[in-house]
Amino acid sequence: MASDDDDVAQEIYQLVHDLFPICRSITGNGVRQTLAMIGKLIPLNVHEVPTGTKVFDWCVPKEWNIRDAFIQDETGKKVVDFKKSNLHVVGYSVPVDQWLSLPELQEHLYSLENSPEAIPYVTSYYKERWGFCISHNERLRLTEGRYRAYIDSDLKPGHLTYGEYIVRGKTNKEVFLSTYVCHPSLANNELSGPAVATFLARWIARHSRKYTYRIVFVPETIGSIVYLSENLDVMKKNVIAGFNISCVGDNRAYSYVASRYGNTYADKVALNVLGFKHPEFTRYSYLDRGSDERQYCSPGVDLPLVTLCRSKYGEYPEYHSSLDNLELVTSEGLRGTYELLKDCINLIERNATYRISCFGEPQLGKRGLYPTLSASKAAVIVRDMMNLIAYADGSNDLIDISNLIKVPIWRLYPMVDKLIEASLLLEETS
Amino acid sequence: MASDDDDVAQEIYQLVHDLFPICRSITGNGVRQTLAMIGKLIPLNVHEVPTGTKVFDWCVPKEWNIRDAFIQDETGKKVVDFKKSNLHVVGYSVPVDQWLSLPELQEHLYSLENSPEAIPYVTSYYKERWGFCISHNERLRLTEGRYRAYIDSDLKPGHLTYGEYIVRGKTNKEVFLSTYVCHPSLANNELSGPAVATFLARWIARHSRKYTYRIVFVPETIGSIVYLSENLDVMKKNVIAGFNISCVGDNRAYSYVASRYGNTYADKVALNVLGFKHPEFTRYSYLDRGSDERQYCSPGVDLPLVTLCRSKYGEYPEYHSSLDNLELVTSEGLRGTYELLKDCINLIERNATYRISCFGEPQLGKRGLYPTLSASKAAVIVRDMMNLIAYADGSNDLIDISNLIKVPIWRLYPMVDKLIEASLLLEETS
Amino acid sequence: MASDDDDVAQEIYQLVHDLFPICRSITGNGVRQTLAMIGKLIPLNVHEVPTGTKVFDWCVPKEWNIRDAFIQDETGKKVVDFKKSNLHVVGYSVPVDQWLSLPELQEHLYSLENSPEAIPYVTSYYKERWGFCISHNERLRLTEGRYRAYIDSDLKPGHLTYGEYIVRGKTNKEVFLSTYVCHPSLANNELSGPAVATFLARWIARHSRKYTYRIVFVPETIGSIVYLSENLDVMKKNVIAGFNISCVGDNRAYSYVASRYGNTYADKVALNVLGFKHPEFTRYSYLDRGSDERQYCSPGVDLPLVTLCRSKYGEYPEYHSSLDNLELVTSEGLRGTYELLKDCINLIERNATYRISCFGEPQLGKRGLYPTLSASKAAVIVRDMMNLIAYADGSNDLIDISNLIKVPIWRLYPMVDKLIEASLLLEETS
Repeated sequence: MASDDDDVAQEIYQLVHDLFPICRSITGNGVRQTLAMIGKLIPLNVHEVPTGTKVFDWCVPKEWNIRDAFIQDETGKKVVDFKKSNLHVVGYSVPVDQWLSLPELQEHLYSLENSPEAIPYVTSYYKERWGFCISHNERLRLTEGRYRAYIDSDLKPGHLTYGEYIVRGKTNKEVFLSTYVCHPSLANNELSGPAVATFLARWIARHSRKYTYRIVFVPETIGSIVYLSENLDVMKKNVIAGFNISCVGDNRAYSYVASRYGNTYADKVALNVLGFKHPEFTRYSYLDRGSDERQYCSPGVDLPLVTLCRSKYGEYPEYHSSLDNLELVTSEGLRGTYELLKDCINLIERNATYRISCFGEPQLGKRGLYPTLSASKAAVIVRDMMNLIAYADGSNDLIDISNLIKVPIWRLYPMVDKLIEASLLLEETS
Repeated sequence: MASDDDDVAQEIYQLVHDLFPICRSITGNGVRQTLAMIGKLIPLNVHEVPTGTKVFDWCVPKEWNIRDAFIQDETGKKVVDFKKSNLHVVGYSVPVDQWLSLPELQEHLYSLENSPEAIPYVTSYYKERWGFCISHNERLRLTEGRYRAYIDSDLKPGHLTYGEYIVRGKTNKEVFLSTYVCHPSLANNELSGPAVATFLARWIARHSRKYTYRIVFVPETIGSIVYLSENLDVMKKNVIAGFNISCVGDNRAYSYVASRYGNTYADKVALNVLGFKHPEFTRYSYLDRGSDERQYCSPGVDLPLVTLCRSKYGEYPEYHSSLDNLELVTSEGLRGTYELLKDCINLIERNATYRISCFGEPQLGKRGLYPTLSASKAAVIVRDMMNLIAYADGSNDLIDISNLIKVPIWRLYPMVDKLIEASLLLEETS
Repeated sequence: MASDDDDVAQEIYQLVHDLFPICRSITGNGVRQTLAMIGKLIPLNVHEVPTGTKVFDWCVPKEWNIRDAFIQDETGKKVVDFKKSNLHVVGYSVPVDQWLSLPELQEHLYSLENSPEAIPYVTSYYKERWGFCISHNERLRLTEGRYRAYIDSDLKPGHLTYGEYIVRGKTNKEVFLSTYVCHPSLANNELSGPAVATFLARWIARHSRKYTYRIVFVPETIGSIVYLSENLDVMKKNVIAGFNISCVGDNRAYSYVASRYGNTYADKVALNVLGFKHPEFTRYSYLDRGSDERQYCSPGVDLPLVTLCRSKYGEYPEYHSSLDNLELVTSEGLRGTYELLKDCINLIERNATYRISCFGEPQLGKRGLYPTLSASKAAVIVRDMMNLIAYADGSNDLIDISNLIKVPIWRLYPMVDKLIEASLLLEETS
């Protein structure tokens, strides 16, 4: 298992690496290429939604595509070149080909004074403008004179594109996984999310599942709104837990962003796994939200969903800049999140409410359920098993019991198996 | 507004000043004169309840009036003189005209060893006796010899007097304000209460109101019991929040005395306003009660009411002595409480439960609801507005939202107005 | 009362002393002798349950009796002798008479390296074996050579024996007291329990009682399972609070072991009494359980029961060794627990839910309920009485009120009596 996951981690990193050069935005061919590459790994269903489609309070915007962009100085030298980094162009920039003085040009430039080597990531989806992003040091090197600003882009009616993969389980009850594919060459935010989700989906599909899994790759905000507008009724009926997967590739501590009230089944699952396996994790409230949980947990939508990250969006120094690159993301970081999500899904698949079948404590000895290992380890296992039995009273699921008796839930799974085999535990049907 | 309140603060202080010389008690002409002066400012309805009227477990006592009182020494010199301070006579003293030795006189004297310059405030409503209150230093200066104790008072069947002003609003649901008028020349406890309540009533009546306001000026304990005995049914049906206003004129931190379980709507209102605007306030439990909340929150009465003070009765050094005078009370102190109570009433008038009208986040940009101020201030306003929207799910009133998103409620009012105008918020009818 | 309890404490200690030499186990004549001695003090009903009887998930084991046991060296000298301490033989040892080499013998010896002077207490109820327990120092003194191991015991079909005493009260609702009688010469664990329970039972029976008291003396685990299997239905219906009494004779701080969720009436009673009278007590959760609460609080049994100890089993250095002797237990220690349990029972007998009979505060003065003691003490009593009245709203029992107003419940009893006499308090019938 460990070495399997090593291999998978390498594959996840390779996918991040391969997707990195593509210029993505909330619409356009970058999204299509991205979904096509993912589609080679899992059977993705790609949807196209026309510009102008009404989706709740929003409208699908025009489609944006870009072929080239640069700033030339008077000598013809390209001082800023989209071909070197797609971050150089403000996302959704309208076409331009114009000579400007340096002061005129400055009004279209974006840089980060506090991170002078980084190219910032800037977009303007809903107000038509054009602009270039450059490092603050490059900006300071620009001399007086005239510059040609050139952007060869289209902003016109087209489609919004998203991908969906549904893995059917034994029941219609669903686990929902969402990640987004609208960021250009940014590695942690957001290629780590789709890359981990892709291999998680492959793992999910390789095993027989109790629950159905709905896994979506959407552009952020407008994409999740589009998806909800098409699927809200069935999701409200069926989704028991959802995870928004974002910024999951760096090597720092995990982050958890709670649902609106922090009290859904997804919160319960995530807090149990993080609390026992990664107790150093950072807990954020819904007030700290900023990704698609904003839509999934909105009033009336009310999906039981949390966001899981490594370094949370907005909270790490490389965020939304060219420093969020293939060095920030590591196969070890990706592997950790992949395993965290597998732990959450294993828990959901295993979790149930049990009742002990006898009054009083059962006599474990006559059934050989007292382990014959070294005394102190055996004593701990017996203590934990007796505690599991003590709280298997039909009112607690395994997560409750894990929390009550302070034992990681994965240590309970083999005990539950033995106790069920011995007819000592009965599963409650809800 | 600020300068208006400056003017009002001066008027409130003037009323305290004008009422100060009157000798009030739980019955008698002092109460009548006090209510008459208040009645010049607001249309007060004055009620007279006869001695002997049964009121719950109590009985309206005899009416007490006093014209003069003094202690003369053998030379005829008045060593204690009611005309200099009405605190000199124990409240409800029966008439006396008698020569006594100093040791005999001592048994009728009250002074404060720990505050030797102050005349204490002492009453004996339900046991007939007579007595004089003097400063401890004066008491020590009394020499051996004979003294004439003279009190020209009446204690006989009459009436208990109280004032009531009801301001009708659009609904029968009521906000209840109570203060008391039974203390003689004590400024904070209790002229600050009726003076602030008078001008608060005037302000309430000058605006169109959603709620009806029941504002009463009663003698403490027996007066609130009388009032409840006459109005309990309608009050239990209609009062949604009540405030007992006491000791509100000094310049120290605010105090809050919780209702019996601290969980009424009045507690919620007061804690929100105090928490955001006056976080240095002191929180007292119902175990610390001592004013008319003892009646209003008693079992079976159960009005949703809290007491608001500056320095709480019993907790400041000048309490119940001649040091509680016109220097302790300031127009700034009075103004602060006046505004605190206006904040509470504004909140009650504005508070409602809202639901966002769309699924997912609304698109604020297309409605011009993204402010165009400086970037960082605008970002805060947008964040707060999005948080308001996030919790406007039909389960929270504005106070809940203010508490959840940690934003003062008055910063939410203009946002609510804009969102209602944009048809994004719907008020829930309960 | 104090001197009465001194006498009782001496009697309790004497009973521990007299029971100490008997060799008890979970079955056999030691239990019978023990119950016979207790039966001289209270009218105990002794039950015999045959070997092989099915009891929930268990089966009544064979009966064990022992007459003699020793280890002889080659010179005939007894190096270990059951007659000197019955702890020397592993409980439930099968008969043996065999010569062994020292290495062979070592496999049947048990000692405590960390407490080298103590003889450990070891049993093997459900796996047939034989063994001897000796101090580690004695063990080290054994020299090479051959040894005769001799145990003259029986392990054959017989009975399990337990004692029961039911004191009828005015209602069928029951208070349940359980203690165990299966430990050989161990003083705190467990002669302190049956000795205190015996004299507590005598005290209970000497007064007219509202509740019925069910007091049982059982072998631990299998005995409580036997008892539950015979009485579960009536106990589930009638028991309102239960106390498992164990390790109650040393002089250290009290311990409380919570019920499964710590929320039963027994928890409420114990926490109130301990909190006000013995605030230094140690609070253990159900995860720290280890005595018969394991059966009484098991799922489906769900009796409202807590365990009360001085030093909790498993938590004191002398536990389960020959150091748990007549020096560890003191009459002062026994007396304290005896009084703690009397406090709990007095509380249960007195506890009720009251409602004040009038609106507003009652006028205590006209009824002479203002005490005429020294001023400050009287003020405290009046404050406490007014607080009692304030929370006597029909929703709180006396324990709730004690907790809310922070006054020990025994200080409320005389106030309740006076208020009932004055018709100011009405008892709510549930």
